[in-house]
Amino acid sequence: MKKLINDPADVVREELQGIGAAHSDLVKVHIDPHYVVRADAPVQGKVALVSGGGSGHEPMHGGFVGMGMLDAACPGEVFTSPTPDQMEAATKAVNGGAGVIHIVKNYTGDVMNFEMAAELCRSEGIDVESVLVDDDVAVQDSLYTAGRRGVGTTVLMEKIGGAAAEEKRPLKEVADICREVNANGRSMGMALTSCTVPAAGNPTFELGDDEIEIGIGIHGEPGRQRIKIKPVREIVEMMAVAVVDDIPFKKGDQVLAFVNGMGGTPLIELYVVFNEVNKFLQGRGVTIVRNLIGSYITSLEMAGCSITLLRMNDDFIRLWDAPVKTPGLRWGA
Amino acid sequence: MKKLINDPADVVREELQGIGAAHSDLVKVHIDPHYVVRADAPVQGKVALVSGGGSGHEPMHGGFVGMGMLDAACPGEVFTSPTPDQMEAATKAVNGGAGVIHIVKNYTGDVMNFEMAAELCRSEGIDVESVLVDDDVAVQDSLYTAGRRGVGTTVLMEKIGGAAAEEKRPLKEVADICREVNANGRSMGMALTSCTVPAAGNPTFELGDDEIEIGIGIHGEPGRQRIKIKPVREIVEMMAVAVVDDIPFKKGDQVLAFVNGMGGTPLIELYVVFNEVNKFLQGRGVTIVRNLIGSYITSLEMAGCSITLLRMNDDFIRLWDAPVKTPGLRWGA
Repeated sequence: MKKLINDPADVVREELQGIGAAHSDLVKVHIDPHYVVRADAPVQGKVALVSGGGSGHEPMHGGFVGMGMLDAACPGEVFTSPTPDQMEAATKAVNGGAGVIHIVKNYTGDVMNFEMAAELCRSEGIDVESVLVDDDVAVQDSLYTAGRRGVGTTVLMEKIGGAAAEEKRPLKEVADICREVNANGRSMGMALTSCTVPAAGNPTFELGDDEIEIGIGIHGEPGRQRIKIKPVREIVEMMAVAVVDDIPFKKGDQVLAFVNGMGGTPLIELYVVFNEVNKFLQGRGVTIVRNLIGSYITSLEMAGCSITLLRMNDDFIRLWDAPVKTPGLRWGA
Repeated sequence: MKKLINDPADVVREELQGIGAAHSDLVKVHIDPHYVVRADAPVQGKVALVSGGGSGHEPMHGGFVGMGMLDAACPGEVFTSPTPDQMEAATKAVNGGAGVIHIVKNYTGDVMNFEMAAELCRSEGIDVESVLVDDDVAVQDSLYTAGRRGVGTTVLMEKIGGAAAEEKRPLKEVADICREVNANGRSMGMALTSCTVPAAGNPTFELGDDEIEIGIGIHGEPGRQRIKIKPVREIVEMMAVAVVDDIPFKKGDQVLAFVNGMGGTPLIELYVVFNEVNKFLQGRGVTIVRNLIGSYITSLEMAGCSITLLRMNDDFIRLWDAPVKTPGLRWGA
């Protein structure tokens, strides 16, 4: 295993210390238990958004804490759910009296622990709504999941929901917007290589020199099929057909197209992928009105990409364009 | 070779088409010859900044075109210098009557071709100043270089010089600010893995399963030494000592610390690196007043990182903080 780390047991703590030192103008990092909150938390009278999950998917979620996006993030160990006490502490730290939304990716550990945390917080008088993300069309159930996995749509939900909260909309309304994002977003990923969890020291799975995995999960969970490498045009078509036909996205739809790198894929390839996604959607009469291209929900150093499409409406577009100021996503501020 | 590409011969063109389709609000892409200009070019009365170099280092340079940074970028084929006709065409396209600055990384092909382009442009009445970047302390001469290579400081020069140009400062003054950035910036890189140029199909160099290369160049050129993998604390110290002692950076200095990913290194590791850089500099009495953490000057899918330190003054800080709106770097706008 070759990684830029010290002891595998210290990776998450040291990463968080790095984030805290680098972005003290935007966020505050709490070490025991681990959580990241926006520097001005709690914002009185604003619905607060809290998310979390295993580490190894950076910048998600800690990199999305700040004005216009999340109020707090709870990082677990690498590919391991955070604990209810982290979530409870983060929720209390950002509660500004208008209620808190838990954005939960659909993995069994995350779901169970966020449920426990929500109960604890409610018993202390905090109004908590939970929103599930389950946008991955690749497989129905999976290694760590009952139902579909939560992937790329999470990033878009955190941005759009965060902007709605920033407008001081009430709890139910912001939660409904988040649920509407989930209902209109679909994703699928693929891997060129595996990744290595630091504490494990060996690749999560093996992939031949000429093999790729279509429908991979963000923890390396099995996808739909393992095939020989093909031109990206054909790879994108396999993924895009699965995504577009699922919802389905129809002629005349306006979408946000999110081409995401898995951590080890350079930007030059992501733009080649975006070019293919754009051509594919033009052929289907679907128009890309916004886009996001880069490595935003990663799987350590895995090479590969995912494609997320979100059907946009005028409110979504306005909320997407609203200012955001986080370590990982920033514009207009 | 497993990459998300079609024919290796089409990678750069298809990437540029992707950039053009994704960011038509910020940039215009010209295909024959290849260059990228800001969408509102030429800006009358403003000094224009033009850079360029081989592709494979994305987002540099095409991703740094836009308000507050570059006016144009000329991408060559992967790891290959662009041609004088590209540079000439780009220079003419962005000339707003106040002169043009060529930002040239110190590689033999880039230097020669930018010189020819500058001569061509001057013969047509355009006032051109050339600024060289040669900030890599790792080695004196190299495979493609007489003198030091140009690396991470390029990104900082493009931002700071771009902000100065945006203030409508005159040509000589903006060029001098760029030269002052080069004089105060130093870098060093390292690799955990090699990378594969698409047209070659094989790794540029070989590195053992437990080996790393300290002082690597952005095209995989040899560095100072090849060693066994160590804890990141020790790797950072080796690089930071070389960078700090070179200029030298002294107790009381204020610096911008730029921790750059080589393309295949995930953000979680870059924050661990930043944490070590921060601790190292604290020990030396050097204060980090600004930072940049991410993959901004890459070497295809190479895993590894580079560290750039830039000694800051009040003018540099103000220009760094000024709004920027490009595909790859954006804040305040």
